[in-house]
Amino acid sequence: MKNIPVVMILFGGSGDLAHRKLYPALFNLYQKGLIRSNFAVIGTARRPWSHEYFRQQVSDAVHETHRGVNEDDIQDFVSHFYYQSHDVTDVDHYIALKKVANDLDEEYKAQGNRIFYMAMAPRFFGTIATHINDQSLTGSGFNRLVIEKPFGHDLQSAAELNRQIRESFDEDSVYRIDHYLGKEMVQNIMPLRMTNPIIKNIWNGDYIQNVQVTLAESLGVGTRGGYYDGSGALRDMVQNHIFQIITLLAMPEPTDLTSDAVHKAKQELLDSLIIPTAADVKKNFARGQYLAGEDHPGYLEEDQVDPDSHTETFVSGKVEFKQGPLASVPIYFRTGKNLKEKNSRIDIVLKHMNNLYGNAHSNNISIVIDPVSEIYFTINGKKIMTDGLRRENLDYRFSEQEMAKVPDGYERLLHDVFVADRTNFTHWAELKQYWKFVDAVEDAWDKQNKDGYAPEQYQPGKFGPASSDKIFDSETEHWIYN
Amino acid sequence: MKNIPVVMILFGGSGDLAHRKLYPALFNLYQKGLIRSNFAVIGTARRPWSHEYFRQQVSDAVHETHRGVNEDDIQDFVSHFYYQSHDVTDVDHYIALKKVANDLDEEYKAQGNRIFYMAMAPRFFGTIATHINDQSLTGSGFNRLVIEKPFGHDLQSAAELNRQIRESFDEDSVYRIDHYLGKEMVQNIMPLRMTNPIIKNIWNGDYIQNVQVTLAESLGVGTRGGYYDGSGALRDMVQNHIFQIITLLAMPEPTDLTSDAVHKAKQELLDSLIIPTAADVKKNFARGQYLAGEDHPGYLEEDQVDPDSHTETFVSGKVEFKQGPLASVPIYFRTGKNLKEKNSRIDIVLKHMNNLYGNAHSNNISIVIDPVSEIYFTINGKKIMTDGLRRENLDYRFSEQEMAKVPDGYERLLHDVFVADRTNFTHWAELKQYWKFVDAVEDAWDKQNKDGYAPEQYQPGKFGPASSDKIFDSETEHWIYN
Repeated sequence: MKNIPVVMILFGGSGDLAHRKLYPALFNLYQKGLIRSNFAVIGTARRPWSHEYFRQQVSDAVHETHRGVNEDDIQDFVSHFYYQSHDVTDVDHYIALKKVANDLDEEYKAQGNRIFYMAMAPRFFGTIATHINDQSLTGSGFNRLVIEKPFGHDLQSAAELNRQIRESFDEDSVYRIDHYLGKEMVQNIMPLRMTNPIIKNIWNGDYIQNVQVTLAESLGVGTRGGYYDGSGALRDMVQNHIFQIITLLAMPEPTDLTSDAVHKAKQELLDSLIIPTAADVKKNFARGQYLAGEDHPGYLEEDQVDPDSHTETFVSGKVEFKQGPLASVPIYFRTGKNLKEKNSRIDIVLKHMNNLYGNAHSNNISIVIDPVSEIYFTINGKKIMTDGLRRENLDYRFSEQEMAKVPDGYERLLHDVFVADRTNFTHWAELKQYWKFVDAVEDAWDKQNKDGYAPEQYQPGKFGPASSDKIFDSETEHWIYN
Repeated sequence: MKNIPVVMILFGGSGDLAHRKLYPALFNLYQKGLIRSNFAVIGTARRPWSHEYFRQQVSDAVHETHRGVNEDDIQDFVSHFYYQSHDVTDVDHYIALKKVANDLDEEYKAQGNRIFYMAMAPRFFGTIATHINDQSLTGSGFNRLVIEKPFGHDLQSAAELNRQIRESFDEDSVYRIDHYLGKEMVQNIMPLRMTNPIIKNIWNGDYIQNVQVTLAESLGVGTRGGYYDGSGALRDMVQNHIFQIITLLAMPEPTDLTSDAVHKAKQELLDSLIIPTAADVKKNFARGQYLAGEDHPGYLEEDQVDPDSHTETFVSGKVEFKQGPLASVPIYFRTGKNLKEKNSRIDIVLKHMNNLYGNAHSNNISIVIDPVSEIYFTINGKKIMTDGLRRENLDYRFSEQEMAKVPDGYERLLHDVFVADRTNFTHWAELKQYWKFVDAVEDAWDKQNKDGYAPEQYQPGKFGPASSDKIFDSETEHWIYN
């Protein structure tokens, strides 16, 4: 790989995300030569760490995720890391940060290239963006901003955040991270759809009855109750991950594989997104809150959660488009906490076909994203001995050896930031549509709340409340994975 | 199951097929109650066996294939077996056989039902059929004839054999056995094609590039050199098994699942079979003879084989139809002895499809008949780490537990004879077409032989001679399983 000269400024350098994901990913890119001699990373956060202490943290992070790596490599790698204690609201600190960045740029010959990475509490995103502009932290080379979710709390706040960011960065330089777009099987959706006649051929409303996207978590809110209670499953999971997956499933084929063409195709789809009415939400959506289980309290008893909270820890609903190959095909989704198991998956349910054998099941195509990487087709075959039919799963599951080769989503996405490939990042025009959809559902729920409705309490260890089984357009539809 | 009263007369009662296949299959049907108190089996052959010795042979045959069965059951089962020493050309023996059959019919209240099973050297089929008629061996109830392959040596001799049989049996009472039609995955072809939109949808010339049927054997002719040298791979395997498989793959869907409707659909297909010209045979066919291997002589050195023989131990070729879902799709087949491995399989090769990823392979649907029961789709997926494509096999293979449940083909087919279901037996009208095709190829080869051509010698342990790789219509086609 080509060595990319750059100074990276990481807001949230002492945080959990940086430790678990970013430092190990950067080390992998270092080993592959994408960053080597001409890079420096400035970690910033409130804690008063020394460079040495910071480097030890980074070294620890690499050791925790890697086995048998060369100590000299790690030592050289961490020598590029610098720490700057920082209060994000203090102007002086930005001036200090600017000086450090300029010095390191010179020391490492980084050619004025800067990557700003916002890996901290989202409430500071706007403030930081404004200061980057006001104190002119950008360099003379390329300037890129990497920003974690959530991007805003609703359409209005997202638009305001976007305005603040755009003061220093043009849209082409903003990398809105959705780590689901870095996952192997999510990146596999387009090749699977587009290179296989067996699949491409049935990828339309003539064959597909519905699509089901499940992002199930087996844990509760844990220590994040305070943040989560102000957000909920719809904002936390649907507005980003679920919509990105749905977009990849339903978008028309791009004219080529460039980032521009891919995003143009996505936009063409999203412009035809049907925004649900309050009546649609009542009919096709369900929301829930988990009850206590053996090893956790109920949501309303969680630390930092309002005991009268109407925030949903589970949501299921329907997305539909007017354009694209899946125009008018219902796309159902569900996501929540304290569900039966951790499982991220897509199930494509084909329409029932009349046949002489009578009792055929639907054909399904299932793509499992987590915890394994797998694709399988469920088809009908002859029952052994008798004339009836039975289901057979034609299965391809990544082996452990293959899984070991799959890079973490963050490694892929950081790589893409360094090489300026925006294919797997969220564009503002897409985000706007996602937020419009989410705002419509939130509005409908607010009205429901005023009418005395509340999320349905659900037992942990299932796939949500009973009402989630009734969101379908027709009585013959149901969740096929349970 | 309903108990079917019947006296079964088995020509070839001391033979290998009866011992290995028919007695174990009859015992299974006995255990399932299809035959119970009202049946008797008369084994006939030249050897002068006693009833007791015969019963011991039957008991041995059951013990060899079954574990832990009840000895009382076996004793009761074999008590229904009787032996009649018999010279198939001696009129008196048929008169004696008739008396035994009539006596047993009365003793077992078999209601005049008779099943005649020809499980012996094919040269006697016609003689036996004539005597059954001349000495009036048929009963007053139903009379069915079960006949093993080969049914004739060419169209003319097959027609003569058919004429002899039809003196005593109408076509509806003739059960021409092709044991491949009793195999699990062969019986699975129609359900797979007809109940799965994913498959049904691409089952036509728009999507399918070609079909490849392989029946590979890993052994040579062994002790059967004398018989085999007068037959060859084309007559021994293609005229029956391969054509039956091809018919199931290429036939239009029947209007219902009755035997009549299935055979009508087969006939509709076979009426459109393209009979190859000598030029077609030259272009699209290959024939070979195996050379010596480490543990076997070459074909021309085999016992009872003419050292100048032109009989083929390998044949590959092309079948094409004018009608049916696969009209104009080339269906390639190959079969032979001393090949790389024992493997009976069908590979459906889909057409290449242009796509943005460029280097996509064809999608294939593979159905493995032997030695395992398996179906898999070969599709393209994303390469881990990079943007290229790789092949993924979506696989369903019967487990050992499932395989243990799969009944032997003979048990299924005997069951069908008892309940008068002719779906999985070969009709005369089908046979006629198969023979026309085979005769045309044999004629072309005869001419080639006169011009000094001979089968190509091939090394054992491969899938036939080099010329077999050149039978395809286009240069982009090749055997996808090697």
